[in-house]
Amino acid sequence: MGRLVHAEDYTIGSTFDLGSHKVTAEEITAFGRTYDPQPYHLDEEAGRASAFGGLIASGWNTAAIWMRLYVTTLLPDAAAEGTVEGSPGVDEVRFLQPVRPGDVLTGTCEIAGVLPSLSAPDFRIVRNRGRLVNAAGDEVLTLILNARFRCRPKHA
Amino acid sequence: MGRLVHAEDYTIGSTFDLGSHKVTAEEITAFGRTYDPQPYHLDEEAGRASAFGGLIASGWNTAAIWMRLYVTTLLPDAAAEGTVEGSPGVDEVRFLQPVRPGDVLTGTCEIAGVLPSLSAPDFRIVRNRGRLVNAAGDEVLTLILNARFRCRPKHA
Repeated sequence: MGRLVHAEDYTIGSTFDLGSHKVTAEEITAFGRTYDPQPYHLDEEAGRASAFGGLIASGWNTAAIWMRLYVTTLLPDAAAEGTVEGSPGVDEVRFLQPVRPGDVLTGTCEIAGVLPSLSAPDFRIVRNRGRLVNAAGDEVLTLILNARFRCRPKHA
Repeated sequence: MGRLVHAEDYTIGSTFDLGSHKVTAEEITAFGRTYDPQPYHLDEEAGRASAFGGLIASGWNTAAIWMRLYVTTLLPDAAAEGTVEGSPGVDEVRFLQPVRPGDVLTGTCEIAGVLPSLSAPDFRIVRNRGRLVNAAGDEVLTLILNARFRCRPKHA
């Protein structure tokens, strides 16, 4: 793929592969203990006693796994810039299937929209449709990440 | 507050205090290294060189801090139940102010809506409006967490 540097480099409908991540029981329970201590995120035995039938990852953990793939694959070259006035945020995070130890999750990022920034005319908001799919081909996560990119500098 | 056990115990407009959490540089960089390795989540020096003027927490880290307060304060008694068909997810996550080392974040949860579950008539979806406020009183995070609660059993 070409380098993604400025807002204009993001074309609606383009989809980018973000690579894969293998989830372990250790990752699931470490995240669960710190941020989402529900029984089925902490312990295999407790998971078996739940509707999930085993240990599963917190949805926030799964979303953060997508973020890591996105940041390490797509962002290194880009002019994504936050501001102290806040960030445009995340919409429609959906946890579609349980994520279990050993699952290999593969990420994609589709450019779903590009909007002008209301507060800064030299920026655009890129709506990234993120997806994680497991080895069986089932979608386990979808979300929309709104990111703020600087437009290409105008030369006089 | 009364115990929140079943879907009927959640009244639209009720707001619950979730307590507070003090953010440290160690937490910010640990989360950043694992899930959101952008420079301003990894290193104070790199943060100073950015628009944020210092180390700041990943938005995902901030959202996960709200989740921990929510789970540990409101969920212990409740019949929140996931299903293998997926969870109703999270909407409108907004990162309104940077979160910095030393910030003490205080959480609330407001019951913004209660909807029937389309797939399971003995459940309802509770729309929880989550907020985190810093010591200066500024909102740093808002989100809507959709959670699935079992209705009170009907007695014949």
